Amino acid sequence: MRRDCHVCRAEGFTAHRRVEVWNGKKSIVATLNVIAGDLLQHGEMGLSEAAWQRLDLREGAIVQADHPVPLTSLGQVRSKIYGNRLDQQDFDAIIHDVVDGRYSDIQLSAFVLGCAGASLDRDEMVALTKSMIDVGERLEWGSTPIVDKHSVGGLPGNRTTPIIVAIVAAHGLTMPKTSSRAITSPAGTADTMATLTRVDLDLAAMRRVVETEGGCIVWGGGMRLSPADEVLIRIERALDIDSEGQLVASVLSKKVAAGSTHVVLDLPTGPTAKVRNNKVAKELCNDLVGVAGELGLVARAVITDGTQPVGQGIGPVLEAREVLAVLRDEEHAPADLRERAILLAGEIIEMANKAPEGSGIQVARDILADGRAWKKFQAICEAQGGMRDPKKAAYTNVVSAPRSGQVVSFDNRRLAKVAKLAGAPTAPAAGIDLHVSLGSMVMKGEPLFTVHAQSPGELSYAGEFVVFNPGIITLQAQS
Amino acid sequence: MRRDCHVCRAEGFTAHRRVEVWNGKKSIVATLNVIAGDLLQHGEMGLSEAAWQRLDLREGAIVQADHPVPLTSLGQVRSKIYGNRLDQQDFDAIIHDVVDGRYSDIQLSAFVLGCAGASLDRDEMVALTKSMIDVGERLEWGSTPIVDKHSVGGLPGNRTTPIIVAIVAAHGLTMPKTSSRAITSPAGTADTMATLTRVDLDLAAMRRVVETEGGCIVWGGGMRLSPADEVLIRIERALDIDSEGQLVASVLSKKVAAGSTHVVLDLPTGPTAKVRNNKVAKELCNDLVGVAGELGLVARAVITDGTQPVGQGIGPVLEAREVLAVLRDEEHAPADLRERAILLAGEIIEMANKAPEGSGIQVARDILADGRAWKKFQAICEAQGGMRDPKKAAYTNVVSAPRSGQVVSFDNRRLAKVAKLAGAPTAPAAGIDLHVSLGSMVMKGEPLFTVHAQSPGELSYAGEFVVFNPGIITLQAQS
Repeated sequence: MRRDCHVCRAEGFTAHRRVEVWNGKKSIVATLNVIAGDLLQHGEMGLSEAAWQRLDLREGAIVQADHPVPLTSLGQVRSKIYGNRLDQQDFDAIIHDVVDGRYSDIQLSAFVLGCAGASLDRDEMVALTKSMIDVGERLEWGSTPIVDKHSVGGLPGNRTTPIIVAIVAAHGLTMPKTSSRAITSPAGTADTMATLTRVDLDLAAMRRVVETEGGCIVWGGGMRLSPADEVLIRIERALDIDSEGQLVASVLSKKVAAGSTHVVLDLPTGPTAKVRNNKVAKELCNDLVGVAGELGLVARAVITDGTQPVGQGIGPVLEAREVLAVLRDEEHAPADLRERAILLAGEIIEMANKAPEGSGIQVARDILADGRAWKKFQAICEAQGGMRDPKKAAYTNVVSAPRSGQVVSFDNRRLAKVAKLAGAPTAPAAGIDLHVSLGSMVMKGEPLFTVHAQSPGELSYAGEFVVFNPGIITLQAQS
Repeated sequence: MRRDCHVCRAEGFTAHRRVEVWNGKKSIVATLNVIAGDLLQHGEMGLSEAAWQRLDLREGAIVQADHPVPLTSLGQVRSKIYGNRLDQQDFDAIIHDVVDGRYSDIQLSAFVLGCAGASLDRDEMVALTKSMIDVGERLEWGSTPIVDKHSVGGLPGNRTTPIIVAIVAAHGLTMPKTSSRAITSPAGTADTMATLTRVDLDLAAMRRVVETEGGCIVWGGGMRLSPADEVLIRIERALDIDSEGQLVASVLSKKVAAGSTHVVLDLPTGPTAKVRNNKVAKELCNDLVGVAGELGLVARAVITDGTQPVGQGIGPVLEAREVLAVLRDEEHAPADLRERAILLAGEIIEMANKAPEGSGIQVARDILADGRAWKKFQAICEAQGGMRDPKKAAYTNVVSAPRSGQVVSFDNRRLAKVAKLAGAPTAPAAGIDLHVSLGSMVMKGEPLFTVHAQSPGELSYAGEFVVFNPGIITLQAQS
């Protein structure tokens, strides 16, 4: 609004104040920016696109602005910060206000910090998860089991989901998989799948695919499953802080909301992965499986290797091509991606009692080896809107070894950063193709990885970062 | 910037990302908003007024935008959140980045919360205070003692400062008082003084006033004394959280930066004042006096009554008129305001060894009673730019007792709110004139207070709030 607008003066609205804006009975709470120029007239207000949508407004509409009612649930946040336990009602009140947009960034940060570290006990994790489920949509599938899979993330190239869905659906299980687009990574499963077929299906279309094929891999972002999660994740990212309770609530609220009954959880563990070491991984497993149990969800958690990327490709198209190579059982298909997908698919098959304990892996391996998974994957893609061939990028730049030696470590975070600077995931063909893995012996001048980009500017930007960050792949000279 | 701007695409700038903007060697870190319309062209950027000023820009200037360097001091904030102690270097790094604008609201909130409650020990409070002093300007006066006074606030109408400065300056002491404008209250000392004389003096003008009159009462906001404080106070307000360590650092950093050597601290204590009870007040006294000592500042803390407003007026003009009444020793002058000013002035006079211990109050009382303080006040106002007569508001509304009874409590927070809704402090004559005090017996229909406003809209807005908040003044029926 204009700083000198009579509404601002009468209401005492000043810059950065929280203001409630009403269109009839719909309202949002927003942070006020004031302007001095002629962009707005007296009594006029400009709004963000998100506000236009939430208020369902048209240009020129009459809105009202006033002071938001006091945020009483902030009292519960303060209580948590001072070390008290919160109950179901407390979390309900907080999460309700969070989803309603009543919390400013400052206040969201306070809630995230109040729940940080190990400050939530098991009951509180259950309560928070329930609150997050309750404020969103909840899918019903009318049969059991409904199987699902989640990877805690932080490991570039870990694109097992499309392969797993194909295997377990081929085995007769129902796996209506909703995936996310990348948040901080160079590619989410939805980004990778979007290079192969349509992923922006609505619920009705998704149901048709699942009814005919037993599985799907679609983008879950438009379905309002656990909408509080998106809000909280943005804050956690800005603080770069680990919150075990919120991680548990984030993962499980989405699974329960999606209607899943059996879920396998993949926890890649390594010094530069999201889960840093085995101790943390085991605690997280306990909490995930324990809280899942309280919510009526059967869960198994699998600690996997998180010391290096999975496969060679990082970025939507580069990862999609490896998914296809595994499904087609091609000779150059990355064995680590294949084995990881088989392991997790085997766990799902066993959990759902579709194979005797201990034989799930073999069942999954057979389905992949004899082409049933590939056939199922093609059928799913066709049902989702037709299968596409992902195109490679026009610009590439090979990064070579500055000296001879053995590959002893990967910095997953900075590898992901290079792929993002190259344009991934917005530019789907952008990313990285690795030419080495842990233990590889390379000679000075041999290629370590190739950066792919869709524009020369992005290619050079990524290249600059590589030059100034020499430790992305560590080589140890051999004596 | 435009969402589709090539710079956004190449750099991966998306909405809400932190972006560093450079003009030569000057830079700011800002949160990016993206637009879809034609307000900006490709490669153009719009900036806030604060950004224009800090970057010293002209319309059409060429700026550069890139990703901010990682905020390494956030690691120290995380460490504090996990319960570790911070040292001088840690606080220096954090406060430096805070003043440089490198912290987003989310991150500022994390720092404030890390220091909340009783989480800072004495050494940490000293270190934080030193860091806050170091990033700002520091005044030098070339003589000692330099006396000062600070009230911890939260009590409407507590406008003792102008009276105290007049008394102690008349007694020959040097008191170069910098005051703030209101932050959350209906009037700050600078707002009240601005109705009587000029307060926006620069440092040179302030020095001239102090050299000739021994005292001044000016607005300190333009002097960059402890600039970190303004940033942190905004966050504390949004969280409505008490942070003893930050309160101590906030108060004392400003006093040391202003060049003070002796300071008296007024802690109004009561259930709806900032300091809620005597236990909290005593702890705060200990910390304030202890930390001040470590910084070479002589301090005394006085716990005063915070159960009801001081005087009858709340709002710049209404308070200024009472200040004048006390200084002129008028018959209707509020005794509580007078006695409080005498008490605090007496403490200052004793601290500075200008009266024997125990006789400061009598010395102060005499200076006020015989007109020396009033003469000094007029001289100070003349030296600051001439004395003005504050004008009363055009619109008033009397709020009457809904039943007969005795006044048993005041809700200071909601009284302040009514005064603010009526327009204070922006509209200087707006506010409240109280007609009762604790213990007053009133009959149904007798006036409790009068709301003053400069516009009919603001008057009705304040009136509405009163109607919906019946407990602002509690009346108890007599049996």
